[in-house]
Amino acid sequence: MGGFFTGRTLTGIGRDLRAGRESARGLVARVLDSVDKDLNAFVTLDAEGAEAAARWADEELASGVDRGPLHGVPVAVKDIIDVAGLPTGMGSGHYAGHVAEADAACVTMLRDAGAVIVGKTGTQEFAFGGSGDVSVNGAVRNPHDRERMSGGSSSGSAVAVAAGMVPLAIGTDTGGSVRIPSAFCGIAGFKPAHGTIPADGVFPLSRSLDHVGVLAATADDCRVAYHALTGPAEAVPSLLAGSSGGGRAGDAPYGRVAWIEPPACDPEVERRVRALFPDAPSERIDFAGLRQVFLAIEYSEAYDVHAERVAEAPGRYQAATLARLEDAGRMPGWRLVRALRERDRYAEEIAGLLDRYDLLAMPTMPIPAPRIGATEVGLGPLTALLVSLTSPWNVLGLPALSVPAGTVPADGGGELPIGAQLVTRRGAESLLFTAAEHLTT
Amino acid sequence: MGGFFTGRTLTGIGRDLRAGRESARGLVARVLDSVDKDLNAFVTLDAEGAEAAARWADEELASGVDRGPLHGVPVAVKDIIDVAGLPTGMGSGHYAGHVAEADAACVTMLRDAGAVIVGKTGTQEFAFGGSGDVSVNGAVRNPHDRERMSGGSSSGSAVAVAAGMVPLAIGTDTGGSVRIPSAFCGIAGFKPAHGTIPADGVFPLSRSLDHVGVLAATADDCRVAYHALTGPAEAVPSLLAGSSGGGRAGDAPYGRVAWIEPPACDPEVERRVRALFPDAPSERIDFAGLRQVFLAIEYSEAYDVHAERVAEAPGRYQAATLARLEDAGRMPGWRLVRALRERDRYAEEIAGLLDRYDLLAMPTMPIPAPRIGATEVGLGPLTALLVSLTSPWNVLGLPALSVPAGTVPADGGGELPIGAQLVTRRGAESLLFTAAEHLTT
Repeated sequence: MGGFFTGRTLTGIGRDLRAGRESARGLVARVLDSVDKDLNAFVTLDAEGAEAAARWADEELASGVDRGPLHGVPVAVKDIIDVAGLPTGMGSGHYAGHVAEADAACVTMLRDAGAVIVGKTGTQEFAFGGSGDVSVNGAVRNPHDRERMSGGSSSGSAVAVAAGMVPLAIGTDTGGSVRIPSAFCGIAGFKPAHGTIPADGVFPLSRSLDHVGVLAATADDCRVAYHALTGPAEAVPSLLAGSSGGGRAGDAPYGRVAWIEPPACDPEVERRVRALFPDAPSERIDFAGLRQVFLAIEYSEAYDVHAERVAEAPGRYQAATLARLEDAGRMPGWRLVRALRERDRYAEEIAGLLDRYDLLAMPTMPIPAPRIGATEVGLGPLTALLVSLTSPWNVLGLPALSVPAGTVPADGGGELPIGAQLVTRRGAESLLFTAAEHLTT
Repeated sequence: MGGFFTGRTLTGIGRDLRAGRESARGLVARVLDSVDKDLNAFVTLDAEGAEAAARWADEELASGVDRGPLHGVPVAVKDIIDVAGLPTGMGSGHYAGHVAEADAACVTMLRDAGAVIVGKTGTQEFAFGGSGDVSVNGAVRNPHDRERMSGGSSSGSAVAVAAGMVPLAIGTDTGGSVRIPSAFCGIAGFKPAHGTIPADGVFPLSRSLDHVGVLAATADDCRVAYHALTGPAEAVPSLLAGSSGGGRAGDAPYGRVAWIEPPACDPEVERRVRALFPDAPSERIDFAGLRQVFLAIEYSEAYDVHAERVAEAPGRYQAATLARLEDAGRMPGWRLVRALRERDRYAEEIAGLLDRYDLLAMPTMPIPAPRIGATEVGLGPLTALLVSLTSPWNVLGLPALSVPAGTVPADGGGELPIGAQLVTRRGAESLLFTAAEHLTT
């Protein structure tokens, strides 16, 4: 399932570009060669625009202008994010033929960093769902098993990276939409703290929960891309720096870690991910309560965005999206009022936990990728399960990283990738990446 | 209909107290003598507590401790506001026998200012409505016509002042609940800017719209009480101070005034109030849109407060309250999301208007007091009509004053009072009182 970029790091690509062993134009050609249409990762390839941008990137590098680690690097962008002159389709019949007039803020940031936009990747319709198989463009397929879900909603971004078509992709994450497909496809996905990468020019799902994030093969590539976009990393001391070094429970070389017990999880997934943090004491958080907060906010804000479309042209939605929107429209206002109050309470509670631990660790997904079209698995209805471990970190706006954590046997044979999720304080993002480095060595 | 305090000002009472012509204890006795039970203004009279507080006030004054204009002045407090040791009944069967353990913040402020709390006044059940006739304690009656509504929800506070039982009362105002009964009963009512008098210890109706306010016979008494509670007045220059004095439209001796056209109003009410501002140019605001914002916020927040009571003991509500709460519970969350965004837009729009005018003038109520039990009048359903001109200023949190504006002939004979409403910028409260002084001379 490997494409040209499989096994290549952003740092390695950057070295090749600067050594003249590779050119940005050459990399664009590699992308176009690597696209596996059957996986349905891309909805738009912009060969012409990418070649022009690549030529410019090459000329700049040749003339001594170096924009940093993303200079000349091909990047794919989720199809709910505007790229000027390209269609933004939202995975929906509602946006057939719609062409963006301006770049989204994150696209401007990519271009300023020298990245080369190669095209738009498939998204769950309006980013409203984590399965990756509900879109006017059809299901995005998991490269590890083409009958399996890619996960979503940044489905195509994850698959394009996982299959080696691009070394980096941009996605959005409202309840897990960067981390879910990253875990299902065996790559890394990073949702920064809320607002760190601005969401202007991104079609909103739920404004106060929407995050822009990055997807790459490894956590280190996420780190490189993240800092290329948002500025240099600040090294943050872990809680160990202030300790006597006596070795408390949960101390790992990279910081003090708590294992957050997942409420419902495939036992093999839990065992594998837990084994990565053998010394971490178990802690519990109120996943059920946080889910209620998440739903009240997401549903209320999502229906605000869609109310007129639902009233005027319901038939242009995929049936599954329309059904969820109708549910969303019925979320009562008083539950939103309560959710916003509860959110503050949970934020305090988790801040207390993050005073005692540098990192909270848990599986990203409680299950490996289900089959395309599934709505229920052994553990329960899929819609809720898909965001069960990821959405609390959207509610709280905390930085959350999903890293590949090996594979588990799939029912029916073969192996499917799983992910470990790490969460930390706002501002302590560097601890996530340091931890990830230790996990993968 | 006059009681002992009819025609007496806070300033005059203060003079009498300091000259030894009157004592705080004597004033408490006057209150107890003046109470007209048939009007149903008070739900609790605290003779013992009031006498003790009055004795203390007298002793302080005698010993040279002078707490200012409210020192020794009897005050009535709305029965959704906690006074330690007294019942807080909320006008509801749900709170039968409930006794408050601590003073509300505004009650502490009253006591610090030397005021003597004489008792608790009747409120619309849970302050949820402007008619004044929905309460476990029965209708509060309008002293101008006992078959008419007092208005609400600070019904008893307005009636106690209007009938001269007390010189001052405290109420709350979420959509007009200080100003509505003030206008219906022919007194003045002031809703300060949001948060100026803290609402801690007040049973919430809709936290982000709830305001604590003062009711007195005249605007000047409201001014005296307001500053006694919140600190000395700051004189604010009107827009005229910066003008060449050429006399623009809307210039009155006290500032530049806009007439805000009421969307639906009894013609005689409109004519009388309009005549107070002959030179003010007409402006329009989006009352209908502001009403949608008001409802979305009030309903969502109110049902959050009541959800468990509605589920567990619906029968303890008055039927009208329960019906409104059930409506409130159905307000969708997406409408609240939209309302909060719209509120920001309206705030900008009205700020623009208040850059050009010192004061916005309009009737307080579009009608004089309807008959008790009415739910519909010629202009439409009463629930909406009662807050039509007052609630925008809760949504925007702006200072709003209702001043007596004479009377209009009632259907069926007699005359009924009406009110003029003045609104200004936060911080420019002094302009309201200066204007009111000019209007009443």
